[in-house]
Amino acid sequence: MKALRVENNQLNLADVDQPKRESEAFVRVLKSGICNTDLEIVRGYAGFSGTIGHEFVGVVESAADAPHLIGKRVVGEINVGCGACEWCRHGDARHCPARTVLGIIGRDGAHAEFLTLPSRNLLEVPDTISNAQAVFVEPLAAAFGITEQVSITPETKVAVIGDGKLGNLCAQSLALKSRNVVLVGKHREKLALVRARQIETVLLEKALKLRREFDVVVEASGAEAGFNLALDLLKPRGKLVLKSTFHGAAKWQAWRVVVDEITIVGSRCGRFAPALDLLKNNSVDVESLISEEFSLTDGVKAIERAAQKGVMKVILSR
Amino acid sequence: MKALRVENNQLNLADVDQPKRESEAFVRVLKSGICNTDLEIVRGYAGFSGTIGHEFVGVVESAADAPHLIGKRVVGEINVGCGACEWCRHGDARHCPARTVLGIIGRDGAHAEFLTLPSRNLLEVPDTISNAQAVFVEPLAAAFGITEQVSITPETKVAVIGDGKLGNLCAQSLALKSRNVVLVGKHREKLALVRARQIETVLLEKALKLRREFDVVVEASGAEAGFNLALDLLKPRGKLVLKSTFHGAAKWQAWRVVVDEITIVGSRCGRFAPALDLLKNNSVDVESLISEEFSLTDGVKAIERAAQKGVMKVILSR
Repeated sequence: MKALRVENNQLNLADVDQPKRESEAFVRVLKSGICNTDLEIVRGYAGFSGTIGHEFVGVVESAADAPHLIGKRVVGEINVGCGACEWCRHGDARHCPARTVLGIIGRDGAHAEFLTLPSRNLLEVPDTISNAQAVFVEPLAAAFGITEQVSITPETKVAVIGDGKLGNLCAQSLALKSRNVVLVGKHREKLALVRARQIETVLLEKALKLRREFDVVVEASGAEAGFNLALDLLKPRGKLVLKSTFHGAAKWQAWRVVVDEITIVGSRCGRFAPALDLLKNNSVDVESLISEEFSLTDGVKAIERAAQKGVMKVILSR
Repeated sequence: MKALRVENNQLNLADVDQPKRESEAFVRVLKSGICNTDLEIVRGYAGFSGTIGHEFVGVVESAADAPHLIGKRVVGEINVGCGACEWCRHGDARHCPARTVLGIIGRDGAHAEFLTLPSRNLLEVPDTISNAQAVFVEPLAAAFGITEQVSITPETKVAVIGDGKLGNLCAQSLALKSRNVVLVGKHREKLALVRARQIETVLLEKALKLRREFDVVVEASGAEAGFNLALDLLKPRGKLVLKSTFHGAAKWQAWRVVVDEITIVGSRCGRFAPALDLLKNNSVDVESLISEEFSLTDGVKAIERAAQKGVMKVILSR
């Protein structure tokens, strides 16, 4: 089958054997989405070799332990735990120390014709959700997951820094909980997407007018400057949600966190079920985030496109 | 009166007028303690000019609005709020944006013969607490304040990084709540002080054997390396309490906080009343932390001594 792979720090579209794991479901991928994490892997920051991609929708072709899933359209949680450690026994494979992660750690990913995942990782996609929408379940779960880590009420003043895909989904997710969400970004056309959802936006160059106004700031820009801006925008005792896994060492003024008694909350993956509900109820708009769709066979070109300025979600179809 | 002052980045013992604020209590200082923050100010990191010092015990000489305090031995909370902002109205001047802070921000401090503070900042010291002990109320409040920000149960696995004064007080404070406290440090003689309180210790060079073992890690070393060690020692979803206000920009790998979903809690000042109770009940030992006592007139020498390796608390007497 065709698969988009990183090997020896080189991205290429390869012909490889179909994946086989007797104990797991075998899934034909319909569409997959390119995430910034894919771009980081291609740049060699994450030490992963293999088929990349972790946002997908597919159809189950076989599943020995879950025959009811066969023929069903599914999305899949990307962390696969050992099943035996304390984390796994508590039903949360996301922090299993021996975990593999689809297309990220030790497990071939979704930018391929087929993939395997344990059937317990799969969730059926309701008919009213399109394939293109379903590709967003993983990043939307990550965005909405913030609301499980930090208390957001209608009065909570929230700023989201970064007008890319992740920032957009964070702003939309948090606006479902708070009336006071502002997205900070530097691209007028990207801010417009969020304003179309009746969410306030502000250009980066004017953000410092909002100094010390927010209870919660979500850093979703992945830039070192975004972190320091977040500290500027927070009230004392405010909460800074760190969302983007940008690699490399950032500089920060730790004393500011101490003096203002800021809490920083690292936030990675969320649960899929609530995200599916949001899409089913049309509570968030994901389709306006799609910049372009490529065939999997043009995967290398698609990755190049996704890395260009101003581009939002790029989708690979089969 | 004599006062130990930093002016034009120069430390000197000056003869200055006694402080006068009609609306505040006038306090004759008996003893004051030298804190690392004093040393940072002397090094020019904090932009403060004036009389330094914020840990003290004294006797109230006059207090127009609180005559019952006159002649009483007191300690004093160091933040003085505007009284009108949202923070002050909620009774917490510690984050008032217009606050002054004794010997730290916009207000002459305690390494002097006299100081003034609003009478509401003063707490009477029970007779059973010695002057030398009372000097520790401020740093002990800061250490014990952690237990108000982070839930510590008898089972919580806690590591404290840093065997200096602050680390010692943090370890002792947290050991009152948890059976599983370990202090990490690099000075055998300082670790011995904590072990004498039946608290486990480990040498820094062996700390990595405890990788990913702790629910809570308190960084009290003030070193950049301490922060990264804290990330090594924490379990996923663990809490890192940032305690020391070391200045300058630190480098950190923000992605580790995201991937392991770590929460970082900045922690500065605590409340004085619980700290006074701890001293009254002999729940913590502070006297073993005293390295040396100087006369205020030898204040410059005392600061030099406090900055030397291996020295713990240096106290100035009048």
